[in-house]
Amino acid sequence: MTDQTPQVRLERAKEASRATAALTSDDKERALEAIAVALEQNAASIIEANGRDIDRGRADGIGESLIDRLRLDEKRVAALASAVRQVAALADPVGRVVGGHRMPNGVALEQIRVPFGVVGAIYEARPNVTVDIAALALRSGNAVVLRGGSAAKESNTVLVEVMRRALDGAGVTAEAIQTVDDFGRDGAKALMHGRGFIDVLVPRGSAGLIETVVTESTVPVIETGAGNVHIVLDESAPEDWARDIVVNAKVQRPSVCNAVETVLVLRQAAPRLIPLVASALQSEGVAIHGDDIVAGLVSNVIPATEEDWATEYLSLDIAMKVVDSLDDALDHIRRYSTGHTESIITTDSSNVERFLAEVDSAVVMANASTRFTDGAEFGFGAEVGISTQKLHTRGPMGLSELTSTKWLARGAGQTRG
Amino acid sequence: MTDQTPQVRLERAKEASRATAALTSDDKERALEAIAVALEQNAASIIEANGRDIDRGRADGIGESLIDRLRLDEKRVAALASAVRQVAALADPVGRVVGGHRMPNGVALEQIRVPFGVVGAIYEARPNVTVDIAALALRSGNAVVLRGGSAAKESNTVLVEVMRRALDGAGVTAEAIQTVDDFGRDGAKALMHGRGFIDVLVPRGSAGLIETVVTESTVPVIETGAGNVHIVLDESAPEDWARDIVVNAKVQRPSVCNAVETVLVLRQAAPRLIPLVASALQSEGVAIHGDDIVAGLVSNVIPATEEDWATEYLSLDIAMKVVDSLDDALDHIRRYSTGHTESIITTDSSNVERFLAEVDSAVVMANASTRFTDGAEFGFGAEVGISTQKLHTRGPMGLSELTSTKWLARGAGQTRG
Repeated sequence: MTDQTPQVRLERAKEASRATAALTSDDKERALEAIAVALEQNAASIIEANGRDIDRGRADGIGESLIDRLRLDEKRVAALASAVRQVAALADPVGRVVGGHRMPNGVALEQIRVPFGVVGAIYEARPNVTVDIAALALRSGNAVVLRGGSAAKESNTVLVEVMRRALDGAGVTAEAIQTVDDFGRDGAKALMHGRGFIDVLVPRGSAGLIETVVTESTVPVIETGAGNVHIVLDESAPEDWARDIVVNAKVQRPSVCNAVETVLVLRQAAPRLIPLVASALQSEGVAIHGDDIVAGLVSNVIPATEEDWATEYLSLDIAMKVVDSLDDALDHIRRYSTGHTESIITTDSSNVERFLAEVDSAVVMANASTRFTDGAEFGFGAEVGISTQKLHTRGPMGLSELTSTKWLARGAGQTRG
Repeated sequence: MTDQTPQVRLERAKEASRATAALTSDDKERALEAIAVALEQNAASIIEANGRDIDRGRADGIGESLIDRLRLDEKRVAALASAVRQVAALADPVGRVVGGHRMPNGVALEQIRVPFGVVGAIYEARPNVTVDIAALALRSGNAVVLRGGSAAKESNTVLVEVMRRALDGAGVTAEAIQTVDDFGRDGAKALMHGRGFIDVLVPRGSAGLIETVVTESTVPVIETGAGNVHIVLDESAPEDWARDIVVNAKVQRPSVCNAVETVLVLRQAAPRLIPLVASALQSEGVAIHGDDIVAGLVSNVIPATEEDWATEYLSLDIAMKVVDSLDDALDHIRRYSTGHTESIITTDSSNVERFLAEVDSAVVMANASTRFTDGAEFGFGAEVGISTQKLHTRGPMGLSELTSTKWLARGAGQTRG
């Protein structure tokens, strides 16, 4: 592309959003199918570009786990195309009537879902986000402006080109997908300050990235992801539930935001539950960062510091602390939780109700694994992200969270008395 | 109060929000009734403090219209109390179940309305906003931090004191209502940067105030109010509808955001409609700012400049322009509208549908007065404001727009496979 400023891209996206908003559900399905086919057909050039990103990453000395997140191979490109087809198969939220009534004077009011207009996305290493966000934005009738991580720049450039050509071939303006990657830091700034052009901005990545976007942006932001997740083992927690849920929540996929990071154990239950739960965790390779009481009950405990309570490990590490009461557990959560997901394991119904009522998080559970906080598990079919803010949407976001609403009023000459 | 920093007030509000979130609907009704009674009983001291604001305003030379907006007399204090009782009578949105289902594994998911926590408000001269916002926030289970205009400082101080004492007498913590008025500009800054303490910030006032709050804030903001509202008179517009709706939309209450500011007339209809509509407006004292064609059809037209198209007059002024086509009308609206309300007058059903589909505003009307964009007219019972943003809420805001949601999950030991 030859445009000289990120602002031009934003303007083109805004202009294109008028066209995408008018697409029928069938139009959008066809466009997404064209993108899926194009990804498959261009797998070789995508993988080649990705190879250049990986070579540069290796030369820059980025770690192997980051290299793995960056990598696109035949299988992963096929998975990208498959993900696009899954999004195409979701019900179109646009035009859904969500409210309405007849005013006493006969004016017919109808509240319907409409696209936001232009969705901005700022994200980090994984190039699959480029395709995921573009597909979700298009399915919900939006144009999209992307700003991916510089580590995936070559991959993202080709992915955007492939998707834009596919749109064009499907009779949809290619301008509906824009990238500002080639403007570096200025691209991100244009997105964050694009008032009147960016209708909503979704950051995806590290806590630091999200904090920067939330703090700097003058456009509306949906805050996602950070998950310092707690499980409380109450006095009455059954041993098998305590063990199975904590192990599942930590071990099944430690690198994601709904994995548990801290276990709080009621003092009276500590001798009964901690050795059992800790040994199950340790046999799965989990390192336990515990307080003195935990260290007295279990071997090989790393002494926990203040920092451990605040840390989202995203690894096979877990913090474990003994608390004197449910009040103390709630205080600890209030202080350290990022408001993502917390769960209590208990058979005491009044403690269930108190926990569900008082914990101020997007998802509050009793006797279930925190790993269930997930768009697919919640039945939304797609994963836009997990909102940890209270405005607009909270918790797993479905496709309809990428829409706004609009009121339509149909009258026959009515005036206000 | 003796606290030395605005931050202390924010912390107290946050702490108090735990208590207000736990109040039952009955508790909140009792607290609001106590506030209404206290306002009535303390009318004399409220009016006295207001008198000091008015004296200072006069000494500072602020205009009579501002003095009128500032003034509290017996009747207006009684109206304040009555407004509080109306809010108390609204259905409590907190705890309402808005979604949910059983996961395939049996986990019961429930999505319920919960208070935001702490609602911040930054507003200008009218002291009634102090009471309105506090009542709406409390009814929806929130604590509130207020920052009113300096012109109403004495009035607001007494109003806040009266409401806090009333809460205390009703067994609700007085800390649920905070003001940062005594910190001047630092109070507003603390609100705008109160991440972790202010869950949502609502600015109410001039376009300049709202722009500042939206741009400076790092907390989530609900943008309200600015209304550069358009009515399009299509070729087929019936003469009586055109005249009655334009006059109603301009004259019934010119100072509010849903009053029409610009009328766009299709060229073919200009000779038929403009003299008729203009003379009806002029006989109500409206000054017409028109283009050359309008000036050729009507006497006493003020020549319109570019600035007129962008101006929210909020007065007995109206801009009038002839356009060649519906496309041109839509282009004009896209360029100058603030996204509040637009209406088309037409009997052409395809133009109705096109207008409703393509205009990207909170409320889009056909053949009805723009004055209907209003919480009470929409049947919400209370007026939190008119949102002109697309995130969270758009158009007239009811009480439930001052709440968020939370997912509750009740399991019996389920883990993720």
